[in-house]
Amino acid sequence: MLIIDCHGHYTTAPAAHQKFREAQIAQFEKGQSAAPLRPDISDDEIRETIESNQLKLQRELGADLTIFSPRASAMGHHIGDEAVSQAWTEACNDLIKRVVDLYPENFVGVCQLPQSPGAPIEASIRELERCVAELGFVGCNLNPDPSGGHWRSPPLTDRYWYPFYEKMVELDVPAMIHVSASCNPNFHATGAHYINADTTAFMQLIQGDLFRDFPTLRFIIPHGGGAVPYHWGRYRGLADMLKRPPLDEHVMRNVFFDTCVYHQPGIDLLVKVIDVDNIVFGSEMVGAVRGIDPETGHYFDDTKRYIDALDISQADKHRIFELNARRIYPRLDQQLKARGL
Amino acid sequence: MLIIDCHGHYTTAPAAHQKFREAQIAQFEKGQSAAPLRPDISDDEIRETIESNQLKLQRELGADLTIFSPRASAMGHHIGDEAVSQAWTEACNDLIKRVVDLYPENFVGVCQLPQSPGAPIEASIRELERCVAELGFVGCNLNPDPSGGHWRSPPLTDRYWYPFYEKMVELDVPAMIHVSASCNPNFHATGAHYINADTTAFMQLIQGDLFRDFPTLRFIIPHGGGAVPYHWGRYRGLADMLKRPPLDEHVMRNVFFDTCVYHQPGIDLLVKVIDVDNIVFGSEMVGAVRGIDPETGHYFDDTKRYIDALDISQADKHRIFELNARRIYPRLDQQLKARGL
Repeated sequence: MLIIDCHGHYTTAPAAHQKFREAQIAQFEKGQSAAPLRPDISDDEIRETIESNQLKLQRELGADLTIFSPRASAMGHHIGDEAVSQAWTEACNDLIKRVVDLYPENFVGVCQLPQSPGAPIEASIRELERCVAELGFVGCNLNPDPSGGHWRSPPLTDRYWYPFYEKMVELDVPAMIHVSASCNPNFHATGAHYINADTTAFMQLIQGDLFRDFPTLRFIIPHGGGAVPYHWGRYRGLADMLKRPPLDEHVMRNVFFDTCVYHQPGIDLLVKVIDVDNIVFGSEMVGAVRGIDPETGHYFDDTKRYIDALDISQADKHRIFELNARRIYPRLDQQLKARGL
Repeated sequence: MLIIDCHGHYTTAPAAHQKFREAQIAQFEKGQSAAPLRPDISDDEIRETIESNQLKLQRELGADLTIFSPRASAMGHHIGDEAVSQAWTEACNDLIKRVVDLYPENFVGVCQLPQSPGAPIEASIRELERCVAELGFVGCNLNPDPSGGHWRSPPLTDRYWYPFYEKMVELDVPAMIHVSASCNPNFHATGAHYINADTTAFMQLIQGDLFRDFPTLRFIIPHGGGAVPYHWGRYRGLADMLKRPPLDEHVMRNVFFDTCVYHQPGIDLLVKVIDVDNIVFGSEMVGAVRGIDPETGHYFDDTKRYIDALDISQADKHRIFELNARRIYPRLDQQLKARGL
């Protein structure tokens, strides 16, 4: 059994990468349109940031492979304009590609998109195509709120997004629904905005008929599905009240929850109410919560321990750790098969 | 043991009440400042709406008393202006008072506030004072987002809200943190906006130091605390990362979660991770989810059944059903004692 972590971000990228971002923002604020030059980052710098963090933890925890994408909180789609988002996104995705090339057995790429508030979705289609066709990535992170906590885009079921979904279907890649930082002081990014976005997206999918139009479209809703499993009765009841089909027919053929829930009772609930075929292992390591839980003596986000401790069959654990990810990300499956795995 | 339901709304108010609201909005839209006359609603009309709904269910379910407030989704603070909100709020609260006067053993009042986007908080202070001192209400519903899904107010820890908290402390009444309808198409009201607001409020309280300034201030976060108990590890870890005190010292002396979670596994989780002294019985009946769960044959929101089924001591159930509510709402406790209860 392979252990595939579907939710890892390059939260520890070399400082020069962040400096490039700061220079880019400073230039935008000064009204200068020319983008700064990409920083010179050596392979050794990348190796250092990866080996002392994500790779170290991957080994300690016993995971084999991480589906790896740029730092979500740094996507910052609300910053600057579409050109700024484009340049930053390309730099972030190219850096992920370098990590994957350095550690092809440990990481597979998922891309950030050059979204920007009010901008058309076409640039995201182009970047998805580039990342999948040219860089070998297997999926993308789609931000349902590029305004960063002001929620000014149409819901995910709106036709605004349809051309992007068509490209996802054509390329046979899933999207993780993942917001970025919040510029609304009401929403702490990882403590409120992330979780709210997960919950919001799920409810939009109940209200809409997206998967009638795109029967093979696949979304991963991270952070254990936000509030959804805890309120599963509410969502089943709302689907009924709103005269929508039952959730298992209407939404759960196309939606998957990761296991980024940082305590055993939460994971216990997730597995109790959600079909195991809809659960995919993720840790978000090194991510939102980096400390050690004084109650267990282990990292809060060492979610593998919680799955290991579940009283479910080994076959079900195999689904959560490996088989579901290979089904949701067919291009990952192809890459693994090509490696004889 | 009394069974006190802390979360009931008058969702079934007589049609004339809603017509008054529609007339009010129509006048505002036409630019007419004069408010329409209050409708003539007979006691019999009120009796009919209550006896065939809330009172019927209260009896069927075996609850004794409901802490009763105007329909939350109809508060509509984002509609009209402050004067519109004021007139509507007074009408709503006065109607609750009539219900309480007709059924003093079954209902106790909690008020809506005349909040309005960008308006000062002073009108809410006056209405709280009126409802508590003149109408005998025991608490209020405080909307952290009067803009209705655009989140344009400052966080609950901001000094904007402090004069209102001072009045709450002076009157010794708690607030349930409860948003109203959403005019942002991203957020379904009861499926996303409500739950997001609960989660958002809790995270604001972690970030701030509100209870250092108001050690006796008390908030009920409804709908089982939004996503919080499911992500309890995340919140404990975030408090640690943000160098905040542990949650039990920093937030949980002042914050309580109701039991409006509509399936057994959710309630099981709630009671497992949250101290029983912080859990207060609520059903939201007749509320967001009105159907019967095909898996159980009972109403989704018959939350008493889930508590009854818990494997906890009778003493702990007594806390959830009665004692915590009497502690959180001291004016309710006084009223009950005056009735010899």
